[in-house]
Amino acid sequence: MKIGVFDSGIGGLIISHALSDRLPEYDYMYFGDTARAPYGNRSQETIYEYSRQAVAFLFQQDCSLVIIACNTASAEALRRLQQEWLPSHFPDRNILGVLIPAAESAVSKTHGHIGVLATASTVESKAFEREIHKLRPEMRITQQAAPLLVPLIENDGQRFASPIIEAYVAPLRDTGIDTLVLGCTHYPLLKNEIQAALPEVTLICQDETIPASLANYLERHPERQATLSQNGGRRFCVTDLTRSVQQAARMLYGQDVQFEVLTLE
Amino acid sequence: MKIGVFDSGIGGLIISHALSDRLPEYDYMYFGDTARAPYGNRSQETIYEYSRQAVAFLFQQDCSLVIIACNTASAEALRRLQQEWLPSHFPDRNILGVLIPAAESAVSKTHGHIGVLATASTVESKAFEREIHKLRPEMRITQQAAPLLVPLIENDGQRFASPIIEAYVAPLRDTGIDTLVLGCTHYPLLKNEIQAALPEVTLICQDETIPASLANYLERHPERQATLSQNGGRRFCVTDLTRSVQQAARMLYGQDVQFEVLTLE
Repeated sequence: MKIGVFDSGIGGLIISHALSDRLPEYDYMYFGDTARAPYGNRSQETIYEYSRQAVAFLFQQDCSLVIIACNTASAEALRRLQQEWLPSHFPDRNILGVLIPAAESAVSKTHGHIGVLATASTVESKAFEREIHKLRPEMRITQQAAPLLVPLIENDGQRFASPIIEAYVAPLRDTGIDTLVLGCTHYPLLKNEIQAALPEVTLICQDETIPASLANYLERHPERQATLSQNGGRRFCVTDLTRSVQQAARMLYGQDVQFEVLTLE
Repeated sequence: MKIGVFDSGIGGLIISHALSDRLPEYDYMYFGDTARAPYGNRSQETIYEYSRQAVAFLFQQDCSLVIIACNTASAEALRRLQQEWLPSHFPDRNILGVLIPAAESAVSKTHGHIGVLATASTVESKAFEREIHKLRPEMRITQQAAPLLVPLIENDGQRFASPIIEAYVAPLRDTGIDTLVLGCTHYPLLKNEIQAALPEVTLICQDETIPASLANYLERHPERQATLSQNGGRRFCVTDLTRSVQQAARMLYGQDVQFEVLTLE
């Protein structure tokens, strides 16, 4: 069985690429709900409904492990989906999110004050605050919404990013954070620009934390690992073959990627 | 009966506000299909189907005149919808788009070379080229896609717009256009920045052309005007109560707007 990676847009493709780079032997299936992206501005109920459809689809396509590689969907839909797919009822079906590995990594690196840079909806959900405080209640956390970074990445606008990043990180700089969670799976593509704006701060990047966390998870759960086929297969599905997903795939994989286009309901 | 204004997102709200500013006595009903926005990347069939549902809903809600305040939907669905709601069969039902008034205005003002600034999908559809060439086949037209402008407007990023606008208009400036159609109903909110980048060029803004065109239409069709109630009423419906539609409404109307949230099928 395969590892499924789901996102509304190209963030999942970034994580999918990072996973297959770190753990190349497994079979991966990427699913991007590009026709309905971005999820960031949608209501919680809509995000849950779209995520439910995506997870059901990936399970149906023979994935035994689905990573919701989208912080918005991890915040708004993961817990409810995990309750609907209880391991006791569905031993071959497991759903993981991207919040907890990032929270764990931040807590292990900080001296006490963590910043979170994310989409407006992830910031409002306070999901990172909750996950970090579950691990270490005394942690100081400062959040900052960065709503334009995803559209910049999705519309070939990285060259315009610096002044926009500066506007977003200036308030964080003043608070004295020592560690910054890049709490959106698109943001690894702006890692260098963000690091340049905050040279003293340790960045937590999900293209590093998610593969490390999955490797660790599979080591600790040999029974899960045993369900996974290891043929190095790759499948890429989207609900709309947009210019930006094709561009991102070419950039990440160094060549054109064959996408299957389908409709979810 | 009311005037209905339909769009996938906040562009329709901008046009709706401009209409009620110019012709305040009428009753308006705005409908924004925010749960399924943006339409720009969807297939023609999907755009037609969503637009058909929206128009049927507005007619059902006692609108006798519906303005499709979305260039994508005007390009992809207007003609077919007009054929389904023929005035000979439905004398109290009329549908207008936003392409033709902008094309007419551009043709009346240009010295021969018109630019079109629009979303990637509107540019690809060549809808403005077709409408302008129907009026004046000899017209020279240069199109430019500006994919980041809608995200900037929808995410409070207008202050970052200038360098991005400069990158989009520089190729247009070099071609020597004398008139520029702002071919997206969001763009009136960046009118000043675009004019500053192209000070010699005449801008065609749909928040001016659509109200002027409707005023003219009602003057020429007193039988249509007679169907419209004049109580200054305003109703606002959306399929998802997003942050950006609330913000845009507050900005346009100077106060919070009460939205009704509903599902279309």
